[in-house]
Order: sequence, then C-alpha cells, then structure tokens
Amino acid sequence: MKEHEIRQNKATREWVIYAPTRGRRPSDFRQTDKGREERPERDEHCPFCPGNKNMLPGIIMAMPSTGEEAWQTRVVPNKFPALATDGDTERVERGIYLTMPGYGRHEVIVESKWHNRGIAQMSNAEVEIIIETYHKRYVDLMKEHENMLTLLFRNHGVRAGTSLVHPHSQLIVTGFVPNHVRWREEQAQRYYDEWGRCVFCEILQFEQREQRRVVFENPSFLAFVPFAAEVPFEIWMMPKEHDADFGDINDVEKRDLAQAFSNVLTKLFEKLNDPDYNYIINTAARYKADEPQLHWYVQIRPRLTTRAGFEIGSGISINPSIPEHDAEFLTEDS
Amino acid sequence: MKEHEIRQNKATREWVIYAPTRGRRPSDFRQTDKGREERPERDEHCPFCPGNKNMLPGIIMAMPSTGEEAWQTRVVPNKFPALATDGDTERVERGIYLTMPGYGRHEVIVESKWHNRGIAQMSNAEVEIIIETYHKRYVDLMKEHENMLTLLFRNHGVRAGTSLVHPHSQLIVTGFVPNHVRWREEQAQRYYDEWGRCVFCEILQFEQREQRRVVFENPSFLAFVPFAAEVPFEIWMMPKEHDADFGDINDVEKRDLAQAFSNVLTKLFEKLNDPDYNYIINTAARYKADEPQLHWYVQIRPRLTTRAGFEIGSGISINPSIPEHDAEFLTEDS
Repeated sequence: MKEHEIRQNKATREWVIYAPTRGRRPSDFRQTDKGREERPERDEHCPFCPGNKNMLPGIIMAMPSTGEEAWQTRVVPNKFPALATDGDTERVERGIYLTMPGYGRHEVIVESKWHNRGIAQMSNAEVEIIIETYHKRYVDLMKEHENMLTLLFRNHGVRAGTSLVHPHSQLIVTGFVPNHVRWREEQAQRYYDEWGRCVFCEILQFEQREQRRVVFENPSFLAFVPFAAEVPFEIWMMPKEHDADFGDINDVEKRDLAQAFSNVLTKLFEKLNDPDYNYIINTAARYKADEPQLHWYVQIRPRLTTRAGFEIGSGISINPSIPEHDAEFLTEDS
Repeated sequence: MKEHEIRQNKATREWVIYAPTRGRRPSDFRQTDKGREERPERDEHCPFCPGNKNMLPGIIMAMPSTGEEAWQTRVVPNKFPALATDGDTERVERGIYLTMPGYGRHEVIVESKWHNRGIAQMSNAEVEIIIETYHKRYVDLMKEHENMLTLLFRNHGVRAGTSLVHPHSQLIVTGFVPNHVRWREEQAQRYYDEWGRCVFCEILQFEQREQRRVVFENPSFLAFVPFAAEVPFEIWMMPKEHDADFGDINDVEKRDLAQAFSNVLTKLFEKLNDPDYNYIINTAARYKADEPQLHWYVQIRPRLTTRAGFEIGSGISINPSIPEHDAEFLTEDS
C-alpha cells in the first residue's frame, strides 16, 4: 500500500487517516518500564483489597459467592459517581437549553482479591467469573425500564483515565441514549434495509475469510484489528453468532469470551509491555436488543497516541500504524 | 442546581454529564510547576527558530514579509505530514471496504521568532499577524476545488498532543468531509428549517443577554463557556455577525479576534498556570460557506481531564466542573 491511505469504517462510515511515515514499526509502541514499580499483592489502604470492606460504600453483589472468604468479584457503588440513583429523566427547559436530572448508575466491578493481578495474569476460570459478574449485573440492571443503556468498560492505567491499581472495571447506566450510539444504530439500520444483512456479520465473515487482521479465534469469538482501526492495536472481539444484546450471551460463549479476553490481553501485555488501555462492551440500547441489524462486541483501545486538535475538530482519527502490521506483530512468535 | 445534572448542547444535541462531586473547585484545576523548566529565547536545535531555515522542508509563506529579518510568522510544510499533497480522492474498493488515497495538506504555522513566547505573552499586534496568516493561507487553500475542509488548530503542551515547544499552530486540509462535521451541519440545517434562524446566533444572543458564562466581549466577538461544555474551561469565541465561513473575516474582526485570543488565553495562562490546551477554528466545509444556518467559531479545550472508556463508548462527556463556575473563576480579580 501507499504511504498515506484513508480507510472507511464500514459500520459507522467514519474515515480514518493512516500516516505510517509519522509513525514507527509496531514494536516501537512497546512501553518502557519508566514509572512502573513493583506492586504488592495487598495494599492496606486499598478499598478493593480483602479486609477493607468498611472502606466501601456498600456491596451490591459478589461472585462466586458473597462470603468474606469466597468472593472473587464484587460489585460496589462508585464512591464518586458520575450519575445519581435518586433522580429521574424528566427534561427541563433552562432558557433556550434543555437539561435533565443526573439519573443513572455508576458501579465498580472489583475483579480479583489480588491487588496486582490483571486479566493477563489470571486463569481462564477467573476471567470467566468476571464475565459472569458483568452478565448478571447487566441483566439485573436492564430489567429496570428507566435504564436505557448499560455500558461496561475498563480503564487500565493513568493514560486510560484511572489511577487505581487494583484490577477493576466499571459500569455506567444512563436514562437516555446518546447520539453516538444512535448514529451507529442508524448506519446499521440503513445497511440492513439496503442489503438485508447485519453489517457487523458482514465484517466478521470477511475478516474470518481474509485472516489478514485476525488476532485470535475460538468457536464463539473472532478477535481482530478492524480494517479502519482508529488507534494502534485497536481490537474488536465479536461473537460469531448474530446477537444485538450482550445480555443474551450463553454459557459456552461466556467461556469462549473469557478465553478470548485472556488471550488478547495477554498478547497486548507481553508484546507491548503492559500498555494502558480502555475496553468497552458495545451493546444495544433498550428496545433495540432484538433487532436484526445490530451486533454486540468488545472494543479494546490501547492508549499509545494522543488525540489532538485535528481529531477533536474533525472527528477523524490519525493512526500511525497499519492494522495488518499490528495483527502480524501481535500474533508472531516472539 | 443539584449535584448531578445533564445538559444538552443546543447546536449538536449531545448530552453532557456534570458530576461536580467527583471534582474540585475551579481553582483546583490550576497546574503545578512540576516538569516545567525555564525555556530559552532561542534553541539552536529548533527548526522554527531564526537562522535554522535549512532545517525546514520549505517555506510556503511568511508575514508581515518574507525577509530573513522581517518575518514574524512562517507557514511551512509539516515534516511528518498526516496527508500527502500528491494523491487524489478517488474511492477504491478493497474487499467489502472503501479506501481512498491520502490526499490532503498538513502545514505548520510558526507563530513567532521567539522560542518561548506564546500568544499569552504577545502583544495584540503580534496576535493579529497570526490571524492574518491563518486567514491568508485559509483563503488560498480553499481556492483549490479539491480541498473540501481546512481546519486550523493549535496543540499546546504534551497532554494536547505536541512536544514541540516553539509556538506554532497547524492546518490540515482534507479532500472529504467527515461525519462529525456533517452531523453539526445537519443539526443546524434542521434547526434553521424549523425555527428559521441560525442556532449559533440563538446561542450567542442568549449568552450575551444572560452574561452568566461570558468570559470576554468586544464589538465583534463574544467569548463564553458553553452551557454544555464538554471539558472544564472549554471556551467558544464566536463572531457576533452571522457568517458560516472563517474566510469572510474582515479587518475589524481580525483585530477584535486577536484581542479576544490574547485576553482569553492570558486568562487561562494566569488562572490555571499555563494549562495544556487545543483550539480549533470550526468553519464551513466547501459549498456550505454561504449557508444561513452555519456559524464559524473558535473552540478552546484545555486538557485537564482524561477521556476514558465511558466517553469512548458512549460519546457522552463527563465534566467535573460547572460552566458558570468556570466563567466566574476566569473573570474574577485575582
């Protein structure tokens, strides 16, 4: 390919600029050890460590069981929530503007008793319990009709927006659906109306056939660097079986998703030396869960570059790394 | 107001979450001196410093004149351009995807001879020459029919995406219009078709009347923290006279914009101790420059918070700071 290329994300129709001359080989994104210190197995000041239950604002649920000894995961209210559980979603006019009360949920999923062991260091069985926890809490929250969207996500490292070391992910429930999610829905709807197929199924099958950007595969999931990845080493993990709603995941898929998470995050950890990253489970908003044009997936975004003025002003990402090169680097034997 | 609130950006219809309990008072966003060293007036290794013309890939234009002594600003090609000048915008199918060659322009506007003096340290006359440079180059580039969008922007500091100290801004020209810009156009179009007015004029007049979020005002410009600011201390500088196109700025407006830039960036510099920031001149794409529903403006976004998984997945910003408090803090006597 030429040095400069612009690629379209088939699902969202966003264009992404590839500028490899600015950039580096995939291996140049490997993180240095600067600023990383040895972390203890337990930290007496960490509210997520065993024995510090009194530092938590409460415990919503735990898995595999709630006993003081038996838990691996705990779901707890966020101590500084972005949204409050006691509001509603009634819109209010303020001058020429619209506002609404800050209703929603903001919870933390503590993933392990160990202060210093992330998913890349866990067994598949441990990761499966995290997925089980996500799923159970997701289903419970979506039973409440005022909850329009439940987003599960993980911020790993300072560049990804967290300074808490203890392995954890979060969920935020909103009482409204943002434009960003509606945009994806609308594009998928138009594609479906035109071609009679789910655009995500189309992408999945093409990637599986081409094998040029695939990072990992098992019977239920395909993990690949998307053709129009916005950042170096962006990865999508997509269920092979069409489904709009993460809530529909079955037991086999949970096990396979745990294996995919474990494999992909270990690859990133080893090849890039524990990069900061975010992941998000993109799933249907309320009332869209049964629709044939949407498809849930996990989006992993390492934080190796900085979004600057051009990206903010245009919405166009500039990616210095080519998706095929990223996939090759992640899958080659070290 | 309540602790948690969700506000709508009237122009884009995006919702923004305000979560002041997570946050701090406006003064807590003041930056520390950590990592800031004294910077010299000249750096012999800096390609933008006088005497280092041979380190530049070329000089496209200079102001007020091109003489080795007489220049204050220089426009030069970016040494590591995101886009290449020798391509075209012909779309090409690659399997199920669309791509196009990486045609575009990527240039740097060196703002001063001095290595260590930003806009906050310049005279109004010097800032006016920067605006003149922006304008001249913008008009020249938009004469070429293949140039669909010209974005002028500035990345200030490492968190904003630059490590080059010498004061500079950039421009990128694309041969296509991204969804982000089309979205803003479409929302403005619908508002115009419904109300018969430019939504930005509406916002401008309301802010001028309310005076609750205004940071600076002169005869041609109003600078204010938008009602649904996405980040702490976001500021919009908007021409009072309706115009979709930055290219139409007149001499009086240039002088007044220079004064507004100078005033607002000095306030940020002094009150927040030289925060990293991006600014972008949001202006009409080709063929939209004469339309009655669009309105150009400068958007300043300090980089004081980190965009994390929830923001990436939902497109919703979580802002820990209330716009009225930001405006009050910036305008009160120290």
